[in-house]
Amino acid sequence: MHVADETWPRPADWQAGPPYGGAYTFMRVPPSRDLQHADIAIIGIPFDGGTMYRSGTRLGPRGIRNASGQMRPYAVDPQRLEEPFRSLRVFDYGDIELYPGYIEQSLARVEQELTTVIEAGVLPVCLGGDHSLTLPVLRACRKKHGLMSLIHFDAHPDFWEGGPGRPYHHGTTFRLAVSEQLINPAGSAQIGIRGSISASIVDEARQAGFNLITADEFARLGVSATLERIHSLARGPVYVSLDIDCVDPAFAPGTGTPEVAGLTSREIVELVRGLRGLSVVGFDVVEVAPAYDPAEITCLLAANLVYEFLLTLAAR
Amino acid sequence: MHVADETWPRPADWQAGPPYGGAYTFMRVPPSRDLQHADIAIIGIPFDGGTMYRSGTRLGPRGIRNASGQMRPYAVDPQRLEEPFRSLRVFDYGDIELYPGYIEQSLARVEQELTTVIEAGVLPVCLGGDHSLTLPVLRACRKKHGLMSLIHFDAHPDFWEGGPGRPYHHGTTFRLAVSEQLINPAGSAQIGIRGSISASIVDEARQAGFNLITADEFARLGVSATLERIHSLARGPVYVSLDIDCVDPAFAPGTGTPEVAGLTSREIVELVRGLRGLSVVGFDVVEVAPAYDPAEITCLLAANLVYEFLLTLAAR
Amino acid sequence: MHVADETWPRPADWQAGPPYGGAYTFMRVPPSRDLQHADIAIIGIPFDGGTMYRSGTRLGPRGIRNASGQMRPYAVDPQRLEEPFRSLRVFDYGDIELYPGYIEQSLARVEQELTTVIEAGVLPVCLGGDHSLTLPVLRACRKKHGLMSLIHFDAHPDFWEGGPGRPYHHGTTFRLAVSEQLINPAGSAQIGIRGSISASIVDEARQAGFNLITADEFARLGVSATLERIHSLARGPVYVSLDIDCVDPAFAPGTGTPEVAGLTSREIVELVRGLRGLSVVGFDVVEVAPAYDPAEITCLLAANLVYEFLLTLAAR
Amino acid sequence: MHVADETWPRPADWQAGPPYGGAYTFMRVPPSRDLQHADIAIIGIPFDGGTMYRSGTRLGPRGIRNASGQMRPYAVDPQRLEEPFRSLRVFDYGDIELYPGYIEQSLARVEQELTTVIEAGVLPVCLGGDHSLTLPVLRACRKKHGLMSLIHFDAHPDFWEGGPGRPYHHGTTFRLAVSEQLINPAGSAQIGIRGSISASIVDEARQAGFNLITADEFARLGVSATLERIHSLARGPVYVSLDIDCVDPAFAPGTGTPEVAGLTSREIVELVRGLRGLSVVGFDVVEVAPAYDPAEITCLLAANLVYEFLLTLAAR
Amino acid sequence: MHVADETWPRPADWQAGPPYGGAYTFMRVPPSRDLQHADIAIIGIPFDGGTMYRSGTRLGPRGIRNASGQMRPYAVDPQRLEEPFRSLRVFDYGDIELYPGYIEQSLARVEQELTTVIEAGVLPVCLGGDHSLTLPVLRACRKKHGLMSLIHFDAHPDFWEGGPGRPYHHGTTFRLAVSEQLINPAGSAQIGIRGSISASIVDEARQAGFNLITADEFARLGVSATLERIHSLARGPVYVSLDIDCVDPAFAPGTGTPEVAGLTSREIVELVRGLRGLSVVGFDVVEVAPAYDPAEITCLLAANLVYEFLLTLAAR
Amino acid sequence: MHVADETWPRPADWQAGPPYGGAYTFMRVPPSRDLQHADIAIIGIPFDGGTMYRSGTRLGPRGIRNASGQMRPYAVDPQRLEEPFRSLRVFDYGDIELYPGYIEQSLARVEQELTTVIEAGVLPVCLGGDHSLTLPVLRACRKKHGLMSLIHFDAHPDFWEGGPGRPYHHGTTFRLAVSEQLINPAGSAQIGIRGSISASIVDEARQAGFNLITADEFARLGVSATLERIHSLARGPVYVSLDIDCVDPAFAPGTGTPEVAGLTSREIVELVRGLRGLSVVGFDVVEVAPAYDPAEITCLLAANLVYEFLLTLAAR
Repeated sequence: MHVADETWPRPADWQAGPPYGGAYTFMRVPPSRDLQHADIAIIGIPFDGGTMYRSGTRLGPRGIRNASGQMRPYAVDPQRLEEPFRSLRVFDYGDIELYPGYIEQSLARVEQELTTVIEAGVLPVCLGGDHSLTLPVLRACRKKHGLMSLIHFDAHPDFWEGGPGRPYHHGTTFRLAVSEQLINPAGSAQIGIRGSISASIVDEARQAGFNLITADEFARLGVSATLERIHSLARGPVYVSLDIDCVDPAFAPGTGTPEVAGLTSREIVELVRGLRGLSVVGFDVVEVAPAYDPAEITCLLAANLVYEFLLTLAAR
Repeated sequence: MHVADETWPRPADWQAGPPYGGAYTFMRVPPSRDLQHADIAIIGIPFDGGTMYRSGTRLGPRGIRNASGQMRPYAVDPQRLEEPFRSLRVFDYGDIELYPGYIEQSLARVEQELTTVIEAGVLPVCLGGDHSLTLPVLRACRKKHGLMSLIHFDAHPDFWEGGPGRPYHHGTTFRLAVSEQLINPAGSAQIGIRGSISASIVDEARQAGFNLITADEFARLGVSATLERIHSLARGPVYVSLDIDCVDPAFAPGTGTPEVAGLTSREIVELVRGLRGLSVVGFDVVEVAPAYDPAEITCLLAANLVYEFLLTLAAR
Repeated sequence: MHVADETWPRPADWQAGPPYGGAYTFMRVPPSRDLQHADIAIIGIPFDGGTMYRSGTRLGPRGIRNASGQMRPYAVDPQRLEEPFRSLRVFDYGDIELYPGYIEQSLARVEQELTTVIEAGVLPVCLGGDHSLTLPVLRACRKKHGLMSLIHFDAHPDFWEGGPGRPYHHGTTFRLAVSEQLINPAGSAQIGIRGSISASIVDEARQAGFNLITADEFARLGVSATLERIHSLARGPVYVSLDIDCVDPAFAPGTGTPEVAGLTSREIVELVRGLRGLSVVGFDVVEVAPAYDPAEITCLLAANLVYEFLLTLAAR
Repeated sequence: MHVADETWPRPADWQAGPPYGGAYTFMRVPPSRDLQHADIAIIGIPFDGGTMYRSGTRLGPRGIRNASGQMRPYAVDPQRLEEPFRSLRVFDYGDIELYPGYIEQSLARVEQELTTVIEAGVLPVCLGGDHSLTLPVLRACRKKHGLMSLIHFDAHPDFWEGGPGRPYHHGTTFRLAVSEQLINPAGSAQIGIRGSISASIVDEARQAGFNLITADEFARLGVSATLERIHSLARGPVYVSLDIDCVDPAFAPGTGTPEVAGLTSREIVELVRGLRGLSVVGFDVVEVAPAYDPAEITCLLAANLVYEFLLTLAAR
Repeated sequence: MHVADETWPRPADWQAGPPYGGAYTFMRVPPSRDLQHADIAIIGIPFDGGTMYRSGTRLGPRGIRNASGQMRPYAVDPQRLEEPFRSLRVFDYGDIELYPGYIEQSLARVEQELTTVIEAGVLPVCLGGDHSLTLPVLRACRKKHGLMSLIHFDAHPDFWEGGPGRPYHHGTTFRLAVSEQLINPAGSAQIGIRGSISASIVDEARQAGFNLITADEFARLGVSATLERIHSLARGPVYVSLDIDCVDPAFAPGTGTPEVAGLTSREIVELVRGLRGLSVVGFDVVEVAPAYDPAEITCLLAANLVYEFLLTLAAR
Repeated sequence: MHVADETWPRPADWQAGPPYGGAYTFMRVPPSRDLQHADIAIIGIPFDGGTMYRSGTRLGPRGIRNASGQMRPYAVDPQRLEEPFRSLRVFDYGDIELYPGYIEQSLARVEQELTTVIEAGVLPVCLGGDHSLTLPVLRACRKKHGLMSLIHFDAHPDFWEGGPGRPYHHGTTFRLAVSEQLINPAGSAQIGIRGSISASIVDEARQAGFNLITADEFARLGVSATLERIHSLARGPVYVSLDIDCVDPAFAPGTGTPEVAGLTSREIVELVRGLRGLSVVGFDVVEVAPAYDPAEITCLLAANLVYEFLLTLAAR
């Protein structure tokens, strides 16, 4: 753990002013691409080229950053006293250049840029964007960390096959991640699965080795037992991918494919808090679509979940 | 149960294209009024002439159909493997012609048209529209099926008396249904009652024989015990009427008279799933008002509840 | 308790017409400033000059009154048969004149006007407006009732220090109330505290003597145990201050500083109902910001909470 | 013309406070049904039972009154110095009771209540509500004033025939008004007609004697020439009916059947100002639907048009 | 010109019911892919993979079809008596299958499907989607009709170069169309160009031969002179492409890259009407993004412009 | 004029990525407070403490910056080839710290900070915030530049007197500016005045020497004659203050006190362009309230007006 000194990143001068104003970065941390002096990089990946229903997640990073303006760098969970920005050097890396319409080039660009970040020893916290972006992040993590456990919160298993000559969209990510041996399904969990998906896709994900906890099963298990299962499964490096549609549309309307009867905000907050102790090497919050978030509550929830994740790291 | 063959209705050619596009029917089932070859007809009744507070449910059928575009014809509940469109011939009947301002003529028209549908042996699934439309549907069902049990999810008992010379509005439906001997209150249940209603109207509904479970009582009973009571009550043919305002405004803001402290989306989904095994002869989802549903979550919930209901039939 | 007679206030003539129309007062009670004949005055305090993040609560009183148009003067909770307008003379006092930009003059004006109301023996029910307005209401109550217990529902303890020469904003209210000896922290409770606040401010509030129940603790305690604690703490005159952001943004998006993972609508309704029996001398619902309430569900919840509070008085 | 004295109606005491707050009447004039002491009554008619497409105008009176809170009792047109509230006793009458679903009973009620107002010598200014309400107002005016000229701003001629046994909806008003000899088409003008209406209905209106100025013709004529034509046509008592959909949807989105390529806000303001000098006996603004008015600009325009009309009277 | 007979397409049976309800096609024309019996096919191309700023036009076809429900099959322009559905067989073809993320495969699919439509002698009227879709439509038209004149209404010339290996996005369409010799720039016009575009791109478009009329120039020229120039330029087969962002954001907020100071609704309506007499072989309205169209006025304008275009054909 | 070299400010590295993403500054210019190397500073003043009706302009700077993300650094007006960022060093200064509720301290802070900026020879371009902030900017400008001409676009003259002990709000700015001899009314113009303001306030502004052009007068004069008058009046240093409510609510709904029948977007764009040649020493765009701007068209217009102003400087 680092010790804060003069060179420690604090909100830049030009960001002085009230929190509802200003030029925004996530929670107003300094904007920077200086990987030498960073522990964690908040990285926007404003891409919705993999979206199969309502588009709009390309504005997700901006929405999450705007909503984060409300948050103060303190512990949401009064138990944990450690403000993460005292022990961790967190920068806002800005956004990665992407090419609407060209998903393969876009994902390649993400992989390339994330590789640089990760090789420099910086932990990436990615703001989506649609779920297709998790694949190149996993690829970049794999090079550094090897086979990973995946903790995946989502309404959908994202385990479908792509179309002919079109392997990538936001629903094929984890089938490809398994087939490319980026993640180890046996050490992985998918939590919150529900909605108008076929029983066969659930079977396929399970046959591939995933520990799939449907929303129905989660409702019976509860937060604690689910966390126990997650901790018992996860081995070695862990990647956490949080699709905001794991949450019920009442708490997170601003997403492309909401599914009814999902998790509550309290449940997802407690699940993220419960990740403490895992060896997380990367994190993302994806599928936030501000155009469907009229009161900005989805963006606010996503921003809080990022901050809750940072708190689990600060607690290390 | 039918066996799918060549003549089985599938989405019509002209509906090819991505699910977010197109000319819409409910879940893109074929549009048709051919009652000979149908098991189930999805029928829009876009009428809000019986609404006493905020109007707008006449756009409910369109809103529900639009939202259903997101849904795939698979089992929401991974336990149940049977896709309903394999065993049931489901058509979208389109909407019934109605006369704003003339509620009596409108209800007569609904009764007449529903009678034809029901006499042909087709089970009606009606998309409202306000709750006044349930009365003519009950009248049409009564001719074919005799006295029915009613399973009624709602924030309000809809058991008020009309005004002088004005018997009909969306709050008088079930008083009239009892007095016309369409339903048997002793075999019927009303679930979710709450809001700024007088204690006396609750008393009256109970004195008429209804098994009325207030939202407070439901919160104590829980889903399972409530379903047990429903199954113990319902005798013979059952009609299910689901007013979306049984759900809390957080989960279903898009309705005319929302009442706070209602059911969650999970609870209503589980209640509808639990109807499996009843001899349901008709179903409606009413009081969806898209103008108050900025993120479309109410329409999506209503569409899912219709689909969950279809799944209970497929399971037969 | 009074007995209704001819002179009893009923909705004024000019308010005839359907409930969705009209010139609005809270639940269409008569507009009046005749303190001689009132038991309870509904008072709007449309001030947002103390807001530190998103402004807009100055339109809160109008929003709550508009939403109250849907409500009928009956018992939301079917257990309680007493309609409050039969035993209590409730007027809508209208709004207090305020001076945007001049918080000190504004708060002085509130104190002065509330003092008149309270001295006349009328119980004030205030519609905010931001939380800074509670301070002058407490000052006015103090003159009549002496040191009070405070029951405070909120996501934030509002126990911060002001800036140099700027003692007042919506987050300093209760630190000032303690230091001015308006309230007795040992007899007071703060319920629902959470969000990006420092552990130290929670510590400070506790060291000052407050019984602070965080949202996490409330989730474990539940409604009944929390109410027991409230009743065991509250001594003598009690003031109840309800910041709508104690509720989760799914149920109450329309507020300036929403915090995720809050109370549900059911929980807050039950908590307010549970206040019955306390010697309440004043009540407010604050921080309702209609511009962030696209489906008006926050305003509706606030209006219901006011009415639930009136029911607790009617039950006396 | 009256002279202001002590008894002159001013905003009631209980309406003190800032204009964005409060219990609302139109521009905060006193609420009253005392016809003895009134010159002008602002009357809400919150009925949308005659609407053939998107419903919601029943909330129009509330929306217009709320928006009027922003307005100060001064001359919008700096030329005219006379504030109307100095020479005219203007009250807000509140709303008329109506029966959703029962258009004939509702219109009869409007006629009955308006008759009382008009017989008392009070000039009615009606806030709609859909256009069907103009018919009973015309009927009431006819009894007192005899055959009238109609100045009618609208996108539609509202000259259609009703259905069998259903004579009334918002598109049949002026055909009925002619056939009932309430208005004299030769002395009447319809301005702004456009949209997806048949050429034959335009022909029919013209054959009935109406001076119909389509939006296309208005665009060529301009404001001045149009006003000249209006003044040359209008004879004896004049009734002015202003359907807000005469204005382009950019300036007035909040209505049920917007039609593109309509008047600008400047044009309609100038047209209303230009009515000065006519012997107007009644005025209405109809078809304002707040649910489709997200930034409240339609309600604000409607409120201004009412005020501009009052100014034409004050100038007498 | 055809003569209507029994086999003429009328709204299908299942679309009976009120216009605000129902399963939607454009103006409720019959859904069909029977190219033998069609003159005009309304084709949805719900693709936004070429969008460079705010996405969401994939829901454009649904939005336009929904808004068209309000329109009646009559002449908007009272001068023209011919209802197009009497002389023209118009079908709604539904939507073309597209592949988010794979713009090249998507455009190839559009070209292939449009080729079939056009080869069958059916005139395509396309509802976008983003402007990249115009290129494959032009390619398909070119095979049948040869080199075309382009009449192009837009805020942007869409004459940029693509990136390396990424030739396609919604801003490269007409540079490619020229280089592929699909259109003849000398016979083409671009009207409404403005916004934050470089002077050099305007120069490039002009050097390529386009007759580019900026919004500033249009404001000086006016509608008539502009139409004269269009008619003097257009030779042989003409393709009309209308990007809704040619219109000012006040009249058409629902688009991805609005530019201020654009055309009014009246101007664009008159421009489309003025196309009568040109030998138009294809038409599209693109860039409608319903998520930014809260009052649906953009969708309504787009639907009217399609209908105005149909009227120009009916007038032939 | 400067010549661009290596040290010239370009978008910072961390702002790479697509324009819809990212950490925002105005048009993505570099964030900086280094006054040595700046020509122009974009300064956010997110204060709405002076607002008398709907609050919310404190989020104006964020809204304008977000909307500016769409704009490219080219000439909106194709006539002017000079991109401003080649000849001018433009920085985004971020926002000034302000104290809600304490308008006097806030304005003092603005004056102090602006004084530093202006003394360094940097031209301030301020993003509001409500109109009260213009006073301290004028005070700061006065110290450096002496008595100024004011060019003021607004619906209101902002020439009212404050209350007792409350001299400041957004309607008193220019009365104070005159009395403090910051501006020379005889060399100043107010354009667009209208709305529910008294004739006497217009008279007072004129008696004070202002050249006040009401919206009515502007409609008759037109853009060119108005610009001629502006150029004939303005002497010496000129300050330009643009209240977005000078524009009609159709084009700029997102403001606190919209007034109907205002300028069009084209007119205000042409007016700002026409300022070229004046010796402008400061500029502001104020009263943008994003909460009332559902399609973001007000923010986009404001951002374009800032950019149009920068272009007038680049043209020097």
